[in-house]
Amino acid sequence: MTDLPMRFPAPGGLPARVRIHEVGPRDGLQNEKQAIPTDVKAEFIHRLAAAGLTTIEATSFVRPEWVPQLADAEELYPQLTGIDADLPVLVPNTRGLERAEALGATRIAVFASATETFAQRNLNRSVDESLKMFAPVVERAKQARLHVRGYLSMCFGDPWEGAVPVHQVVQVAKALAGMGCDELSLGDTIGVATPGHVQALLSALNEAGVPTPALAVHFHDTYGQALSNTLAALQHGVATVDASAGGLGGCPYAKSATGNLATEDLVWMLHGLGIETGVDLDQLVATSTWMAAHLGRPSPSRTVTALSHKES
Amino acid sequence: MTDLPMRFPAPGGLPARVRIHEVGPRDGLQNEKQAIPTDVKAEFIHRLAAAGLTTIEATSFVRPEWVPQLADAEELYPQLTGIDADLPVLVPNTRGLERAEALGATRIAVFASATETFAQRNLNRSVDESLKMFAPVVERAKQARLHVRGYLSMCFGDPWEGAVPVHQVVQVAKALAGMGCDELSLGDTIGVATPGHVQALLSALNEAGVPTPALAVHFHDTYGQALSNTLAALQHGVATVDASAGGLGGCPYAKSATGNLATEDLVWMLHGLGIETGVDLDQLVATSTWMAAHLGRPSPSRTVTALSHKES
Repeated sequence: MTDLPMRFPAPGGLPARVRIHEVGPRDGLQNEKQAIPTDVKAEFIHRLAAAGLTTIEATSFVRPEWVPQLADAEELYPQLTGIDADLPVLVPNTRGLERAEALGATRIAVFASATETFAQRNLNRSVDESLKMFAPVVERAKQARLHVRGYLSMCFGDPWEGAVPVHQVVQVAKALAGMGCDELSLGDTIGVATPGHVQALLSALNEAGVPTPALAVHFHDTYGQALSNTLAALQHGVATVDASAGGLGGCPYAKSATGNLATEDLVWMLHGLGIETGVDLDQLVATSTWMAAHLGRPSPSRTVTALSHKES
Repeated sequence: MTDLPMRFPAPGGLPARVRIHEVGPRDGLQNEKQAIPTDVKAEFIHRLAAAGLTTIEATSFVRPEWVPQLADAEELYPQLTGIDADLPVLVPNTRGLERAEALGATRIAVFASATETFAQRNLNRSVDESLKMFAPVVERAKQARLHVRGYLSMCFGDPWEGAVPVHQVVQVAKALAGMGCDELSLGDTIGVATPGHVQALLSALNEAGVPTPALAVHFHDTYGQALSNTLAALQHGVATVDASAGGLGGCPYAKSATGNLATEDLVWMLHGLGIETGVDLDQLVATSTWMAAHLGRPSPSRTVTALSHKES
């Protein structure tokens, strides 16, 4: 039987190659209730890199009491030596940046919100105050020649505020770009976006001077929309897509079992479209199946489910 | 909080309205192992119509020993009197057509295969032989002024033959159109298609003289691709989309828990794109939640999961 998916490039032009920003070890595992041993996390990241992922967000240097699931960042990071992939880490403030730098991190990310309510709930300050907190972090990181990603959450809908106006997202995005972020990841944190909304936001950002190559998209599959929204972003020219191996991670604010776009479902579509990712899908599925066994529950990824059943 | 999804029409033009061909009662329930009482099926169809669905495939007039789940077609159909929706029924042959006509059905569907192996396994004859079986059925149905849909399964991949050549699908599609089918539903029975493949097939069909208004798409979510493939079809101009309430139904050949595109996930995207469907999403979710309770397991639809958790 022929290897699937079959390659059928889409008419009209899509990026020839997409960089997948794998968020499973950080965004996925930080939402796990159970404690994952540090050596399991390290093996997970090693296996993801061996499967061909070139950007793997490894952990977060936040205060351990805020995110106890990632409190082992200092123990984990040295175990990643020798991995042939970029390993960005999340830092919330200057103290986090210092910890990351001390371990030799070359890529960091800050996590901003497009809405006031989520900024208050997640960062305990207003959007403006959070930007003031990030500015010296980004400035110092750029001086140290680190690559800086700015996450922008709640870009489409907010569980408390409802629809998020496009111009409000653009304003915060411009502020993050203006302080020196190399890349912005637009998050649909509660998974409510649809393709026209995605393209409207991307166009508005372009018009405001934020070019498409500086943009990544980060979709959640709460309403099953993540992959069609990704297709819409690809059609706009976006070539960096966030995803989580096996669909690890949920959004605690959306009250749903489903979370991040599964990397495997994304890879299936990209490879079918003839878009290169460098990922070995079988090896990735094996990794997610292995991780699911550690977590004691099946992966929500459709592709993992289909391909792991096929093997058995 | 604002009602979600928010409406953001896509740039470039999509159909203003999409007709959803609801297949849950037939394609969904025929794959259920347990027997569903006839009055539950009837209530299901009444509730789907009350939720605004205008085309609901009700049952199948096959030999009861082939599909015991739908052996109650003669009991069920009269219970659907007064429903304000089209209620097509599947018929495999002239005998099935006679049974459907006797009950007053005005829309029928035949079920063909694009591949030899599936034709042999599902219909116990070659593709050519199956077309010869359908020809008199379609001819007689057209004489009786019935609307005829031709299903074409395995249009993208086949579990035994692998990738299915586009020209092979076009050949069978032309034969079905030539014998008088009003509409063709292109099935990705094992869920392997990706958006470029969808558009390649649609273009090839147009070039062969089958116009887009005569085409419907029928995607399975085995690899999570159903909704992005639907978006690609909409971008090509397709305005009839098959879906199954709550994602009911699986493909027994794909060894996966997931089956048809869930109507709710589809409606979320369409309404977000500003495309009219006439469907009341909350009422539809309530119907699928009610049906899931009858079946004793949760719906695989992401939207049903998210919205039913929200209520509780």
